[in-house]
Amino acid sequence: MAEPRALENLTVLDLTRVLAGPFCTMMLADMGAKVIKIELPVSGDDTRAYPPFRTNKDGARESLYFANINRNKAGLTLNLKSEEGKQIFRRLAEKADIVVENYRPGVMDRLGLGYDELKKINPRLIYAAVSGFGCYGPYHLRPGYDILAQAMGGMMAITGARGGEPTRAGSALGDILGGLHLAIGILAAVNARSITGRGQRVDVSLMDAVIAATENTAIKYLESGQVPPRMGNRYAAVSPYDGFTCKDGVVIIACGNQKLFAKLCDEILGMPELVTDPRFTDMPGRLEHQDDLKVLIERWLADKTMTEATDILLAHGIPAGPILDISQILADPHVKEREMFVGMEHPTLGPITVNGCAIKLMDTPPSVRTPAPELGQDNDRLLAALGYTQKEIDRLADQGVI
Amino acid sequence: MAEPRALENLTVLDLTRVLAGPFCTMMLADMGAKVIKIELPVSGDDTRAYPPFRTNKDGARESLYFANINRNKAGLTLNLKSEEGKQIFRRLAEKADIVVENYRPGVMDRLGLGYDELKKINPRLIYAAVSGFGCYGPYHLRPGYDILAQAMGGMMAITGARGGEPTRAGSALGDILGGLHLAIGILAAVNARSITGRGQRVDVSLMDAVIAATENTAIKYLESGQVPPRMGNRYAAVSPYDGFTCKDGVVIIACGNQKLFAKLCDEILGMPELVTDPRFTDMPGRLEHQDDLKVLIERWLADKTMTEATDILLAHGIPAGPILDISQILADPHVKEREMFVGMEHPTLGPITVNGCAIKLMDTPPSVRTPAPELGQDNDRLLAALGYTQKEIDRLADQGVI
Repeated sequence: MAEPRALENLTVLDLTRVLAGPFCTMMLADMGAKVIKIELPVSGDDTRAYPPFRTNKDGARESLYFANINRNKAGLTLNLKSEEGKQIFRRLAEKADIVVENYRPGVMDRLGLGYDELKKINPRLIYAAVSGFGCYGPYHLRPGYDILAQAMGGMMAITGARGGEPTRAGSALGDILGGLHLAIGILAAVNARSITGRGQRVDVSLMDAVIAATENTAIKYLESGQVPPRMGNRYAAVSPYDGFTCKDGVVIIACGNQKLFAKLCDEILGMPELVTDPRFTDMPGRLEHQDDLKVLIERWLADKTMTEATDILLAHGIPAGPILDISQILADPHVKEREMFVGMEHPTLGPITVNGCAIKLMDTPPSVRTPAPELGQDNDRLLAALGYTQKEIDRLADQGVI
Repeated sequence: MAEPRALENLTVLDLTRVLAGPFCTMMLADMGAKVIKIELPVSGDDTRAYPPFRTNKDGARESLYFANINRNKAGLTLNLKSEEGKQIFRRLAEKADIVVENYRPGVMDRLGLGYDELKKINPRLIYAAVSGFGCYGPYHLRPGYDILAQAMGGMMAITGARGGEPTRAGSALGDILGGLHLAIGILAAVNARSITGRGQRVDVSLMDAVIAATENTAIKYLESGQVPPRMGNRYAAVSPYDGFTCKDGVVIIACGNQKLFAKLCDEILGMPELVTDPRFTDMPGRLEHQDDLKVLIERWLADKTMTEATDILLAHGIPAGPILDISQILADPHVKEREMFVGMEHPTLGPITVNGCAIKLMDTPPSVRTPAPELGQDNDRLLAALGYTQKEIDRLADQGVI
């Protein structure tokens, strides 16, 4: 008998757009939750108009961005400003486990669809929202974007070359961190519901999520009085732990403890005397004199490729690896075996590759099963399940309700 | 009556060290799980020797790094290489819900404490592991460190100044992403157990977690054949969406759509003609000519502070905000109201500030309740609960089992 999916008992009404919310519900859907993506009639999720694009089988420009993040979800269109649209949403919410939205706080309340209203019709409902700054606090009504969260959450201030500018992570990291925290909050609320019998509100702010990801930055500052500087690829607590230039790229070498450092000096660099060199005898010394150490390591690397250097270092038990770009990652045998990218057939785009799921549940594995929905593709099925006749459904479409 | 805690029904045996695992179990503990942190006798978690340090009330150097990430956890010492240590662990595992470890794959199996053994004594046990490369795949036995995950997961290749070096995020982002994915996997497995009645193995790799956080990088590359370049603080799909220099720092301005861009030109820059300027009429045009746009925006910013500029832009509905460093974040009224940093009294360190929890469960709020454990502080209580007498416990301590 086939194993069930990990979250197959959960139905999610997904009002989210763009990335933070859709990334969260993508993970839930990959793990088997029944996710109904609810979009505005006609226009749909903003990312349907985001690059990269491909000319689809109908000759139209279609977004791969949307296709990637919204696989495994059903598609329903609904105009929540219309009375009938609200009614349909309420009827769906009666039977759902989770509503997820990433409107600016207050929008759902003004529509009469806020948590206080919805919990009256379904006390077991979990209402999860992710926004730039959360649903309370002085900035809660500010517009939120990934880059603002990276900026105001403190990640940009600590990222970048020594002496260089504050630097944004090269992906929408604030959105990803927000989506991950939201997924944890939703699943924790599912567990809490098994204790209390009731749902609750889950609130995640992108800014909070980025702050959490700066881990010990605050205690470092509070203890030293010094704002931690940007320092390229180095780490304040460990050395050597950096990128080192070799013949064809950059190799990371990470010696987390004294034993590894001794191995590096003795077996790799052939300079056992470094272990007792007063500059390098302990971690504080190595942190202070890491420029000197770098020269010695890069001297050894000068005639070696990333692959050669990594192989030699690993053979001696020293943590090492190349800096890979996405072309190298896609070709990597480890990444392939981990199924971090998955090919699938899309009805209008043809064969596409989408991201895999990084959460490996070994007995109930996440999977990519169905392509991202066409706008409103499941309207008929979902409304028929609520008792609407095809004639009524056609009328709702004509009137712009769906 | 007080609300229960969201995860109070879950007992976690936490074998993790350093950051990825402890960050995961910190979130679980903040949400009320009973986390028993199991450490090596005498030495304990490596991070007990990581900076920042404070001289404690006994005059010894004590780590704030450890104190931050391990609050709310109980402390047990256990030598898992000793037969009696294994026996104690097995007895705890009989009654636990979750084991979390971040050893290199195979270590627990060699100790006779791998999932295949533990599930025999407790089929409901969830066994969660986070490691550099996961428990399968060609690299699974490689040593894993945060920086290797950032390098091999593709985040460094896309982060950094235009034309500059690949850049590591300024915190241990790979560990944080690994810990977040692991927490989702654990809670999904808890839900799956409510369906199947059985636990399962959860496997998270730091490299996978970083790859997931690069979101659409792969589809961009696959569709264009171009490896996405590093581009400082810009975003490939939206413009203006960047940092702009003002009088006292850098302000982020993010115009995600045409309407916001028109507002910026008209109401802020006082140059409504830009909207119909052929360079800027649509998003592809603005992406191509963003250097020109930057000059115009920075001309407006030249005589304004971050705060002044942010206030003006927000008053006109344009998403904006300053790049904040940790000193500014700690002083920020929004961050205070969101309780993203929490003061607590530590028995040996005195008053300390620790990170708050970014997952706001509104009816069962996460909280910081107890300080990080002293090494083995709960040995007597936990072993007495298993039926050991004080005399036996003293013998176990003398023999180095605990």
